[in-house]
Amino acid sequence: MTRLSVSRRLRRTPFSEGVEAAGVTAYTVYNHMLLPTVFRSLEEDYRHLKSAVQVWDVACERQVELRGPDAGRLMQIITPRDLRAMMPGQCCYIPVVDETGGMLNDPVAVKLAEDRWWISLADSDLLYWIKALANGYRLEVLVDEPDVSPLAVQGPHADDLVAAVFGDQVRDIRRFRFRQIDFRGRSLAVARTGYSKQGGFEIYVEGGDLGMPLWSALMEAGAPWDVRAGCPNTIERIEGGLLSYGNDMTDDNTPHECGLGRFCNTVTAIGCIGRDALLRVEKEGPVKQIRAISIGGDRVPPCDRFWPLRAGDAVVGRVSSAIWSPDAGTTVAIGMVRMTHWAEGTELTVETHDGPRPALVREAFWA
Amino acid sequence: MTRLSVSRRLRRTPFSEGVEAAGVTAYTVYNHMLLPTVFRSLEEDYRHLKSAVQVWDVACERQVELRGPDAGRLMQIITPRDLRAMMPGQCCYIPVVDETGGMLNDPVAVKLAEDRWWISLADSDLLYWIKALANGYRLEVLVDEPDVSPLAVQGPHADDLVAAVFGDQVRDIRRFRFRQIDFRGRSLAVARTGYSKQGGFEIYVEGGDLGMPLWSALMEAGAPWDVRAGCPNTIERIEGGLLSYGNDMTDDNTPHECGLGRFCNTVTAIGCIGRDALLRVEKEGPVKQIRAISIGGDRVPPCDRFWPLRAGDAVVGRVSSAIWSPDAGTTVAIGMVRMTHWAEGTELTVETHDGPRPALVREAFWA
Repeated sequence: MTRLSVSRRLRRTPFSEGVEAAGVTAYTVYNHMLLPTVFRSLEEDYRHLKSAVQVWDVACERQVELRGPDAGRLMQIITPRDLRAMMPGQCCYIPVVDETGGMLNDPVAVKLAEDRWWISLADSDLLYWIKALANGYRLEVLVDEPDVSPLAVQGPHADDLVAAVFGDQVRDIRRFRFRQIDFRGRSLAVARTGYSKQGGFEIYVEGGDLGMPLWSALMEAGAPWDVRAGCPNTIERIEGGLLSYGNDMTDDNTPHECGLGRFCNTVTAIGCIGRDALLRVEKEGPVKQIRAISIGGDRVPPCDRFWPLRAGDAVVGRVSSAIWSPDAGTTVAIGMVRMTHWAEGTELTVETHDGPRPALVREAFWA
Repeated sequence: MTRLSVSRRLRRTPFSEGVEAAGVTAYTVYNHMLLPTVFRSLEEDYRHLKSAVQVWDVACERQVELRGPDAGRLMQIITPRDLRAMMPGQCCYIPVVDETGGMLNDPVAVKLAEDRWWISLADSDLLYWIKALANGYRLEVLVDEPDVSPLAVQGPHADDLVAAVFGDQVRDIRRFRFRQIDFRGRSLAVARTGYSKQGGFEIYVEGGDLGMPLWSALMEAGAPWDVRAGCPNTIERIEGGLLSYGNDMTDDNTPHECGLGRFCNTVTAIGCIGRDALLRVEKEGPVKQIRAISIGGDRVPPCDRFWPLRAGDAVVGRVSSAIWSPDAGTTVAIGMVRMTHWAEGTELTVETHDGPRPALVREAFWA
């Protein structure tokens, strides 16, 4: 077990009080902020997420806000996804790349108005990248981190719970759309998004003072569906093939290597800073790519470093996330594999730091 | 006690194996990397640091490398410290500011050659800021994170230990200077810098494969001086008034508020992106500033959030770091106080999350 020393630098959230009262047992650090990782146990949390409903403190999905006449132009500079057709009220998962096409983050963009956007971040200080671009390109846009903290409601009963607090209109919100809905006299964006395959919502809590009132309202209203405090669950996310920036991809990787080519419209994304590099990648295709991997043998230790994937003596890739899945009945893993060995059914060896295990390349993730 | 969930995203270092073998008992996360915080106990580590010598895994001080004809120009863009007189072989503590003069990081700049620099980072992704500026200003410079991991040797016997491994020439290295010295046939920068008041060196280990060989060489050579694995010590750093980015200062603060005005040559730092804003600050002076604060009464809980400083009913500042110091015989703290109440001897109340305590503004830190 590893102990974490707390300090102001690892920021608490507007929901921390609720998280502690609910008996959080472990954290990670994400965007310089505490992110709960376990309440009862990974497997018990997993079962509950798949059968009931959970409220998640994901305030660590910090926002970058862009406001002003050049906000839309700056959005297109940072991503190869073509955003021209995006309307206010829409959310959009966007790869963000540097000038070489390397991934800098994989946030969700939230379009509030033609001249106002939020970017809901994965774990890197993308604020610095965007602020400097605004400055270097002399754009007319304000860029900052607003006091906005997402609270997620995930699980099969997410609709019931969010409807109980925000009204039945939330049932009509489509995937990757949001509506502004009143809570205690303040308007909050309620989006049908989230970092699980169970479905649900993310509520963008504008103003930290609303954090605990909303947390408590959800926990109280959720009794009929056995609501609990939860958090992104490592087992469920790997089963579902949800990538994690910093784990499964870094700035070494292009979106295409990460299997995110479908979110790139490189030809039409005119203005994107990585466009030249990615046009080249698109033409030639990536030489390695993310794959679902199942690992046999004994349970593996926590995957806290890249584990090489071997075919005989040759290293042909690496595993970046892995954990035992009770439902899959195997160790589920996310790997990056060279094209020579990425075909479904390829048998490899994964070198965990606890010894080798047999590994199998799968066609798809489990959920 | 707070548990930390490990994952690839919280990167291990070239020295992690040595740190674990030495019995690390707690970590923090810094630049997406593990930073040890405690070995035996904070107080035992503190006593030892002040009397013997320690080897610290500070690989989390990640480097940004700038190479190319515009490297020097880009360096001056990011800081209000005038770097014109800086020579290769010098290190320089530099406030890094945005266009409003807000602190983005407070790294040590290492000048390797006229066209090649390292920036040894505090906890923020400054790489993103610098890469985007290079792009936006169309500068001829390569910007990336090299495979360089600092290892610190700190304590009263640091000279003896580093001389035992690198030779007596290290004794002649002056403060904030470095020399390239061979270790196992490779040239490493050995700098007289470090995040303690006890003196010592930081060795820039270029190539992760050299990490454990150097760690082991230092631990073996250090037996006569009771060398131990150590880490930046919270008690010693607060006593000494060493600020911590993200704890004691954020991008809300100017260098002047942080008491770093002496590192700003705003008039002559032509090209600095925050120059206009800081010229204004320099003229008017900051309205709040970092102060040493002693806190009376019972021991305080870990300072994991800002604690308001009050004068009667008015909030006049906040404490951002605080811990009991055995040598000072009081709780030592770092605060930011409004000018109306920052005079030495001012009596205030600090609202810890465990209740109020008397607080006293001091003239200076303890060491």
